[in-house]
Amino acid sequence: MAAKSLPLSRVYRLLEPGPVVLVTTAHRGRANVMAMSWHTMMEFEPPLVGCVISSRDYSFDALTATRECVIAIPTVEIAAKVVGCGNTSGRRIDKFARFGLTPLPASRVKAPLVAECYANLECRLEDARLARKYNFFVLRVLKAWIDPARKHPRTMHHMGRGVFMVAGRTIRLPSRMK
Amino acid sequence: MAAKSLPLSRVYRLLEPGPVVLVTTAHRGRANVMAMSWHTMMEFEPPLVGCVISSRDYSFDALTATRECVIAIPTVEIAAKVVGCGNTSGRRIDKFARFGLTPLPASRVKAPLVAECYANLECRLEDARLARKYNFFVLRVLKAWIDPARKHPRTMHHMGRGVFMVAGRTIRLPSRMK
Repeated sequence: MAAKSLPLSRVYRLLEPGPVVLVTTAHRGRANVMAMSWHTMMEFEPPLVGCVISSRDYSFDALTATRECVIAIPTVEIAAKVVGCGNTSGRRIDKFARFGLTPLPASRVKAPLVAECYANLECRLEDARLARKYNFFVLRVLKAWIDPARKHPRTMHHMGRGVFMVAGRTIRLPSRMK
Repeated sequence: MAAKSLPLSRVYRLLEPGPVVLVTTAHRGRANVMAMSWHTMMEFEPPLVGCVISSRDYSFDALTATRECVIAIPTVEIAAKVVGCGNTSGRRIDKFARFGLTPLPASRVKAPLVAECYANLECRLEDARLARKYNFFVLRVLKAWIDPARKHPRTMHHMGRGVFMVAGRTIRLPSRMK
């Protein structure tokens, strides 16, 4: 990816439409990546992101221990890799190697960026108060990267049981909302 | 809307793709409706939904006081009404009347369903622990309604500053995820 720094004030525009994302962690010398789509923006700036990562997932322990992760946003061109990450566990395999994803060094966290994704958000764990009861984490985005060449990224949106909606056309309406 | 009861186990399929939703409340004899897209699934069944409703919004007080709301999911056919709800405050106007939305009685809560929406979720406030710090509410879906005639609802997905992505085609992949 040709990465350009994205102002933190624009991060909400990437996550608010609800794409499936990849979440990377690095723990005990190993990087891992999982697919996730239970997330929401919680604040514009600094950008706060709430997300659910199950305690059954290998990434739960890595995130809890290191308090860092990267949220990478894939597009439909790499759908097979994304689904592969969702179908497997980092306990057993190196998913970067298995699915041909390229880890790149991040600037603020040890978790890697994903080169094949059009945007990458370096995050620090901000609040884990609801982690025990709901597996819910509040993340703060420290640094955001985007591929400036990708004008209309076709994000994937999970509808359950193998069905994904692919981002369609965009329309402009006289909204006064940020 | 021709409303059919939807099993609670399927609610996540409606919200996980990230659509803009309407949230209705009823407080002190008045119904109100707001537009919202900072939400995430938190549990499959019973379905838990996390969402951010700003303390500046009129609905914040109604939700806090009554502990009930309805999440209604609109499609692009009523985009102008949705944006109208987002641009205005229930403090000053009756948005149902102003934007030609039809409130219908719900079965488990006093907040109304929205007839023009293809799905309606009756919700009770489950956890407000993060409400003070992040305006974040955990809602439990008690009852779900869907229009069985709408096979490919074109949901709207907010991208900021008046730009919305309209749900595109769907694809099927060999995902083992629920």
